[in-house]
Amino acid sequence: MNINKNKMIDFNTLSIQYRDELLENVIPFWLNHSQDKDYGGYFSCLDRQGNVYDTDKFIWLQGGRQVWMFSMLYNSVEKRREWLDCAIQGGEFLRKFGHDGNLNWYFSLTREGKPIIEPYNIFSYTFAAMAFGQLSKATGNEEYAEIAKKTFDIILSKRSNPKGKWNKAFPGTRNLKSFSLPMILCNLSLEIEHLLDNEFLKKTIDECIHEVMEVFLRHELDGLIVENVNEDGSLSDTFDGRLMNPGHAIEAMWFIMDLGKRMNRPELIEKAVETTLKTVEYGWDKEHGVYSIYGP
Amino acid sequence: MNINKNKMIDFNTLSIQYRDELLENVIPFWLNHSQDKDYGGYFSCLDRQGNVYDTDKFIWLQGGRQVWMFSMLYNSVEKRREWLDCAIQGGEFLRKFGHDGNLNWYFSLTREGKPIIEPYNIFSYTFAAMAFGQLSKATGNEEYAEIAKKTFDIILSKRSNPKGKWNKAFPGTRNLKSFSLPMILCNLSLEIEHLLDNEFLKKTIDECIHEVMEVFLRHELDGLIVENVNEDGSLSDTFDGRLMNPGHAIEAMWFIMDLGKRMNRPELIEKAVETTLKTVEYGWDKEHGVYSIYGP
Repeated sequence: MNINKNKMIDFNTLSIQYRDELLENVIPFWLNHSQDKDYGGYFSCLDRQGNVYDTDKFIWLQGGRQVWMFSMLYNSVEKRREWLDCAIQGGEFLRKFGHDGNLNWYFSLTREGKPIIEPYNIFSYTFAAMAFGQLSKATGNEEYAEIAKKTFDIILSKRSNPKGKWNKAFPGTRNLKSFSLPMILCNLSLEIEHLLDNEFLKKTIDECIHEVMEVFLRHELDGLIVENVNEDGSLSDTFDGRLMNPGHAIEAMWFIMDLGKRMNRPELIEKAVETTLKTVEYGWDKEHGVYSIYGP
Repeated sequence: MNINKNKMIDFNTLSIQYRDELLENVIPFWLNHSQDKDYGGYFSCLDRQGNVYDTDKFIWLQGGRQVWMFSMLYNSVEKRREWLDCAIQGGEFLRKFGHDGNLNWYFSLTREGKPIIEPYNIFSYTFAAMAFGQLSKATGNEEYAEIAKKTFDIILSKRSNPKGKWNKAFPGTRNLKSFSLPMILCNLSLEIEHLLDNEFLKKTIDECIHEVMEVFLRHELDGLIVENVNEDGSLSDTFDGRLMNPGHAIEAMWFIMDLGKRMNRPELIEKAVETTLKTVEYGWDKEHGVYSIYGP
C-alpha cells in the first residue's frame, strides 16, 4: 500500500455511510440478537445470522463493549428507550455477577453468571470502568458512578503488577512494562472524566501521554511504538521487547488524538497523525496485504 | 486428500531417506549451531543458516528435545562421543539452572541461566523427566536417574491441577480435564521404564491408555479425540470441550502404538491406526489443504 497515492477521500460521504451502517445494520443486529432475555447480559458468540453458538459471557465484551456502546449512543446520539434499557439490563448483570464482591472483575462467566475464569486480566477492569462511567451518565445512578470510580482506583493500584498472583514472570530477572495499560488509561480517563477530580485527572492524563509518546514511542526506531520496554524505559532486546503491534499503536493514536482535542494540544494530534502513518507504512505487508505483527 | 488413492509406499527407501536426512543434515546442524559454549545449554532460536536470533532458553526445548535427542542417539544409534558430550553439557545446565532447587522446572531461562518464567507449565517437567531418563541410561549416572524419577513423582502429584497457583479457572464452575497430560504420560512412562517399579509402571500405563482410548476418544463422535472433557468423563459443550487438535491426536496414537508393541497388545495398535486415519480424514481441510484445528 502506498498511502500517498490514495485518491482524495470525500469525508462527508464516508461519514454518512459509516453512520448509516452503524445505526441501521450493526446496532439493530446486536440489539435484537445478543440480549439474553432469560438471564440478563448479552451473548457475544453469534454467527452472521445472529444465532448463538456459545453462551459464555466475557466481561470485557459484556461491559466495555456493549453496556458502554448502548449507554454512549443514548448519551451522545439519541435518547432511545430501547438503547437505555439494553444498557441497563447488561449493567445489572455485570453489577450482580461480574465481580467477586470487591470489584475484582472476572474474565468470563457462564450464561447464568457463575465465574469461569478468575479476575487475572486488567482489561476486564478497564472495560467495566468505562461501561459504568457511561451508564452512570445515562442514568444518573450514583451506584454506577461509584462502581466506575472504585474500579478505576483498583486499576491504578494494580499498575505495577496487573496480573497479580497470576503473573508468570519470575520476579527480578526481566521486569518489563507493557504498553497496553497506559494506552487504555488514555482512553479510560476521558471516559470517566465526569467522575474524577480535576487535578487528579490532569496528572493521570499527563502521565499516560508521557508513557505512550515518550517511553513506548521510540525515537531510535524512527518513531515506531513497541509493546514492552524495561522498567527504566530502555529497549529490551528480547522476544517481548521486540514485539510491535501496529493495530495497538494505531488504536492508541486515536486515543491520543482525543486527548489532544480535549487538552487543546494540536501538536499532540499532529504527532499522533505522523505516528499512525509511520505505523501503517511499517506494518503493512507489501507482499500479502495484511499487517505483520512482529518487528523490527 | 483421499488416503485410499495413495500410491504404494516403499517403506525401505523412505526409511533410508529419513535416516540420512536426520543423521547427515538435521543432527549436525543442531550439534554445530545450537550449543552455547560459553554458558552451557543450547540456543533454540536459530535461523536457517544457524545464526542465533534470540538467546532465551526454554526448558522443554533444552531438556525434552535436545538432551533427550542426543542421549537417545547415543543409546540407540551409535556410541558417538560428541553426541554424549552434547547431551551431558545440556543436562548439567538443566540440573544447575533449570529448576528452583526442588525440581520445580521453570518454563524459560536467560542465556546465563536466570529464571524468566515461573514453573507453571507441566510440560517443562515432563520433558525434563524424559531428558534425564535417557541421560541416565547414557551415562549410568545415579543423580540423573534420581532427577528423572523424582520429577516423575512430582508430575503425578500435580495431575489434578497441573498449573498450580497459576491456574486461572475459577474452582468448581467448569472443572475440565485435559488430554495433553495423560497423552504425554503414555510416552513418558515408556521413556523412564528402566527407573520404575514394574507393578507401578503397569498401573500407570493402564490408566493412561484408559484415559486416552476410552475417555478422550469419543464413540459418539465416531471415534475422534477431544482435547477436554468434564471431570466425570462426559463431553462439555463449551469452547474448550469442543476443541479438537488433529496433530495432538495423531501424536498420541504414535505413543499408543509404542505401548501396544511394548505391552504386546496388537488390538491397541489396530485401534490407533484406525483412529489416526479417522483423524486425518476429519481434520484435513479439503479446500485449503491444511489441518483445521477446531471441530466438531
